[in-house]
Amino acid sequence: MSRVAIVGATGYAGAELGRACFGHAGIESVTLMSGRTGGERTPADPRQTRWVEPLDLAALGSDFDVVFLCLPHGVGHAATAAALQGEARVVDLSSDHRFRDASVYSRVYGADHPAPELCDAAVYGLTEHGRADIAGARLVANPGCYPTAALLGLLPLVNAGLVAAGTRLTIDAKSGVSGAGKSPSDTTLYGNVNEACRAYGVGTHRHAPEIASRIDADHPVTFVPHLVPMFRGMLATIYVEPRAGVTLQHAQAALDDAYANAPFVHRIEGQPTTGSVARTNHCHLGVAEADGALVVTSAIDNLVKGAAGAALQNMNVMLGFDEQEGLRSLDGVMP
Amino acid sequence: MSRVAIVGATGYAGAELGRACFGHAGIESVTLMSGRTGGERTPADPRQTRWVEPLDLAALGSDFDVVFLCLPHGVGHAATAAALQGEARVVDLSSDHRFRDASVYSRVYGADHPAPELCDAAVYGLTEHGRADIAGARLVANPGCYPTAALLGLLPLVNAGLVAAGTRLTIDAKSGVSGAGKSPSDTTLYGNVNEACRAYGVGTHRHAPEIASRIDADHPVTFVPHLVPMFRGMLATIYVEPRAGVTLQHAQAALDDAYANAPFVHRIEGQPTTGSVARTNHCHLGVAEADGALVVTSAIDNLVKGAAGAALQNMNVMLGFDEQEGLRSLDGVMP
Amino acid sequence: MSRVAIVGATGYAGAELGRACFGHAGIESVTLMSGRTGGERTPADPRQTRWVEPLDLAALGSDFDVVFLCLPHGVGHAATAAALQGEARVVDLSSDHRFRDASVYSRVYGADHPAPELCDAAVYGLTEHGRADIAGARLVANPGCYPTAALLGLLPLVNAGLVAAGTRLTIDAKSGVSGAGKSPSDTTLYGNVNEACRAYGVGTHRHAPEIASRIDADHPVTFVPHLVPMFRGMLATIYVEPRAGVTLQHAQAALDDAYANAPFVHRIEGQPTTGSVARTNHCHLGVAEADGALVVTSAIDNLVKGAAGAALQNMNVMLGFDEQEGLRSLDGVMP
Amino acid sequence: MSRVAIVGATGYAGAELGRACFGHAGIESVTLMSGRTGGERTPADPRQTRWVEPLDLAALGSDFDVVFLCLPHGVGHAATAAALQGEARVVDLSSDHRFRDASVYSRVYGADHPAPELCDAAVYGLTEHGRADIAGARLVANPGCYPTAALLGLLPLVNAGLVAAGTRLTIDAKSGVSGAGKSPSDTTLYGNVNEACRAYGVGTHRHAPEIASRIDADHPVTFVPHLVPMFRGMLATIYVEPRAGVTLQHAQAALDDAYANAPFVHRIEGQPTTGSVARTNHCHLGVAEADGALVVTSAIDNLVKGAAGAALQNMNVMLGFDEQEGLRSLDGVMP
Repeated sequence: MSRVAIVGATGYAGAELGRACFGHAGIESVTLMSGRTGGERTPADPRQTRWVEPLDLAALGSDFDVVFLCLPHGVGHAATAAALQGEARVVDLSSDHRFRDASVYSRVYGADHPAPELCDAAVYGLTEHGRADIAGARLVANPGCYPTAALLGLLPLVNAGLVAAGTRLTIDAKSGVSGAGKSPSDTTLYGNVNEACRAYGVGTHRHAPEIASRIDADHPVTFVPHLVPMFRGMLATIYVEPRAGVTLQHAQAALDDAYANAPFVHRIEGQPTTGSVARTNHCHLGVAEADGALVVTSAIDNLVKGAAGAALQNMNVMLGFDEQEGLRSLDGVMP
Repeated sequence: MSRVAIVGATGYAGAELGRACFGHAGIESVTLMSGRTGGERTPADPRQTRWVEPLDLAALGSDFDVVFLCLPHGVGHAATAAALQGEARVVDLSSDHRFRDASVYSRVYGADHPAPELCDAAVYGLTEHGRADIAGARLVANPGCYPTAALLGLLPLVNAGLVAAGTRLTIDAKSGVSGAGKSPSDTTLYGNVNEACRAYGVGTHRHAPEIASRIDADHPVTFVPHLVPMFRGMLATIYVEPRAGVTLQHAQAALDDAYANAPFVHRIEGQPTTGSVARTNHCHLGVAEADGALVVTSAIDNLVKGAAGAALQNMNVMLGFDEQEGLRSLDGVMP
Repeated sequence: MSRVAIVGATGYAGAELGRACFGHAGIESVTLMSGRTGGERTPADPRQTRWVEPLDLAALGSDFDVVFLCLPHGVGHAATAAALQGEARVVDLSSDHRFRDASVYSRVYGADHPAPELCDAAVYGLTEHGRADIAGARLVANPGCYPTAALLGLLPLVNAGLVAAGTRLTIDAKSGVSGAGKSPSDTTLYGNVNEACRAYGVGTHRHAPEIASRIDADHPVTFVPHLVPMFRGMLATIYVEPRAGVTLQHAQAALDDAYANAPFVHRIEGQPTTGSVARTNHCHLGVAEADGALVVTSAIDNLVKGAAGAALQNMNVMLGFDEQEGLRSLDGVMP
Repeated sequence: MSRVAIVGATGYAGAELGRACFGHAGIESVTLMSGRTGGERTPADPRQTRWVEPLDLAALGSDFDVVFLCLPHGVGHAATAAALQGEARVVDLSSDHRFRDASVYSRVYGADHPAPELCDAAVYGLTEHGRADIAGARLVANPGCYPTAALLGLLPLVNAGLVAAGTRLTIDAKSGVSGAGKSPSDTTLYGNVNEACRAYGVGTHRHAPEIASRIDADHPVTFVPHLVPMFRGMLATIYVEPRAGVTLQHAQAALDDAYANAPFVHRIEGQPTTGSVARTNHCHLGVAEADGALVVTSAIDNLVKGAAGAALQNMNVMLGFDEQEGLRSLDGVMP
């Protein structure tokens, strides 16, 4: 039985993770923490049945088996260090440990990495493409939501050699606004989101180099994220040029083979909708051909498979639990 | 002063057109017609201030200067013939006359064209790229909503020779659900639209060949439409490979030059949102570079610039009115 | 361990119930049935992991311990009879057995009741106000969604004698559109729901007499339902005239006392939002005073506490399970 | 031809008003001003076709015929004084001059009124119930959005003597979130608004005394506002006890008579939806009977008839323009 801490439990991903942990059969206790409580414990729900404690760095290394860091990038180094100094395993949902090369991090995030040695030690937590490494890791870097949706669709095709050498990989992604977090801003203002759709960060979004860094082949990667008027959900539409002779059937087979034993990733007939995977840890994939291009669509819930659910899935792999433990109750079919 | 008939006035585009016509200084009368009224006139609004008359084919050729056909494809041939037999000019919002070659229509729509000679006579009504021909036309084929958004962004780059020869043009488009019409169906069901995003018609949507047929260069065209949970609005994200030496500045200049005298199409700094063009006849364009690709985003209101507004704009050009007449009142900045 | 059948499993409530049952520790098997499958089994989800079987009346009485009827009113009598002829307990989510007096049913629903004797035998399943009777029942009539929200707020005040004798009880209720079901219609059309709010059924809604019939005191009951643009959720705002001397504190105490041992109903400080109870079986109540009136607001998820969750809660009481079994996994705090 | 200034032009109501003014045949120039521009002019739209100037108090009294104040309460006194010192007429959209009695303002808003003499001089601008006074006014206090919706439905019944003496008037109002303004906050955060409905300000909302102060009879007034997940629109559901002998037909006649000559207020059959009046200056009223109570539903666009449209309508009355001038283009039937 494991003792779990969630640091940053007041944000969307942290709260989602807390919810899932409370239903996990192998978790003995869940402690919610936040640096935003001003030193006081604060209720986590309107009925005050759960509480968020002030951040306690000392406890992170001594009182917990697993520490989840649900923090913005660049602020979690002290918590990471504290947890690793003790016995705890760490799943970091921020982007701090997603690049093997600290200099790439520095370039992308515009700041030196405070603990470059951890960049190399951390394991990238795209579970379906790294179970063995994750199982042995002390520090797992949970992937970004966009990279999760994109890579789950892309990697099987690239790895099976179906993509024409050197051709561009184009990823057009649509996200619900929960990805922008819980802080009120012009980005999250109802009047700016409702009945509006727009691209953002074209050519500059930090998830573009994250995606590119995880593809073991030389392709330019064009990634354009969009905000659509919904709270949850993410759809990545992926355009690739097939190698000569590659058919739709090859692509279907590559996806089916890659995820034959994956409980959460499934190719479906037709086109997936984010509605079908909302509040679940599932990824639904569709593939079709359009005037010579292969088009893969990949639907996830950005807060679950794109954040909290994947983190719990990684913990399950790290601690030897059934990969689905704590995540089955989310496996609904309702919108 | 012109007498106008709107056939198919009970649908979204027809109603929108009716609204705009009522504020047009050069229109003497507007008659709303529909074949769906069951032979009775029916109120067009809850206060019963405007009425929809039964379809009257005989009147179309004799009583009106302009006939707008807001009908599904394949059902408007009798109305078209009736109007053209008389003196009326016709703006057809359906897809019946958008292909110069009737055999392409037959292939795309799976049915012989009942009046192939009209395919050749009709002028494609993408106003900004065909004013002169539209001015002299008896029959204008109003473009589809997706082709409007896509071509307004694409044509300036293609026509200026900025696109690498033979490379794929990729168009990822997001539409509000009003594009699916007013008939209750699983596609338009609130519970299926709300909090859901999905691709559809990948490789099969009929607007793909419409777009391809209007590009005077040899490029594969991959077009993937998506439904996003909003009523109005359309965003096309367009990915092109620049010819060697072509920069972002070249692309900006091509867009600026193409629309220097266009009252409704504008390149803006940054990325446009559909919210800013909702209920207007405007198209906002943005362009950026992402890992070597040029990315143009094109935002319109699918019911206005993508349908009713463009139709009225075409009528203005056909009859010599100011191109903006009747459309200025829509020129708001509010969501 | 119980064998469960859900008849009408393709609707929103049936699907929701199926989801909850799959996580229930005391349920051995769940069979989904529907009369709409055309005699073929059909997939219940895009991945085809669960299936809906054709309705099998013969099996209802012999193969199941509990039969849930998730059907429209007036069509489930054969299934009810089949189940009761065997050993099964029945929870009927339709309105067929909510009136003790069959003649009231006839008047309200405009049709004779086919089995008037069942009206008297059935137990009204507002769990918090009828546990003992529900525990012993063969046939439980699950309350309507509006009556659930209204009565949970009203009954404690009425039963504690806080309401001025003979005064009007006014219930202004707001519902998400899932309450209108899954059939495409003008009521469920995205374009009619989005960005629109309206009252309906003023003076005629069938839940008004259902509410009135459950109040053991003589008060006129004015109930006005509204549709608001959301999928799930229901808020009842209840206006009552306090008896002389009754204060806000009396009302708070009455609510607290009534639900001291209820795991799913809670008075909170301030005003509840439907967002906090979405996808849970909880009801959050708020109470305030406004110019001499007591105002109770009652928030539920219309598909859960207003339908499927309450049905499962009733099954738990009927079979002696923990009242929360199968419903805890829904107990989240996220929207 | 009139010269118009809009102070506070960056908010939702100010922007809406600016849009309407630009289409008004009797307005020579529109100057947008804001105290929030930091001393620089800032673009009012993405295309930078209109600009917002810094607030210029000196100009208010000398350069304009009409000054609209679209400001929060309590901050517009200097602008009001400056405008009135000159020749300008003033329409104040804030609540600063809505109470005849400055001491009521002080009690409701918790601050002394800086210019009590203006409270008495100002005319309450509920146009349909005060045309004559408005025509001669220097300073018009535009009503609050909730009072507009409520009073348009209530006053005809009260004034015709249809309401039982001394009985409670209950107003349950539902508003889109644009009423909360454009500042990012927990109230306007997409994640808190979407898929959520809640009451707020029960017993404390400042529009309750505003409503009560405009009813010339002695009734307790219970007003409860709610937020529903939409941007625009407001529905007030009004419950009154009819005097003995008063029928639904009396109520219909009272509404019809009161608004026989009102271009913007209309009783319709059935129940109005906010969707039908969105972006128009219209108010649609419905009335029905429910278990002995009369129920009036009143639908407006909170930003138009509830703010900017009413302000322009008042200006039309003040300056002798046609009451509908500038507002006809908004008179659509589309959502």
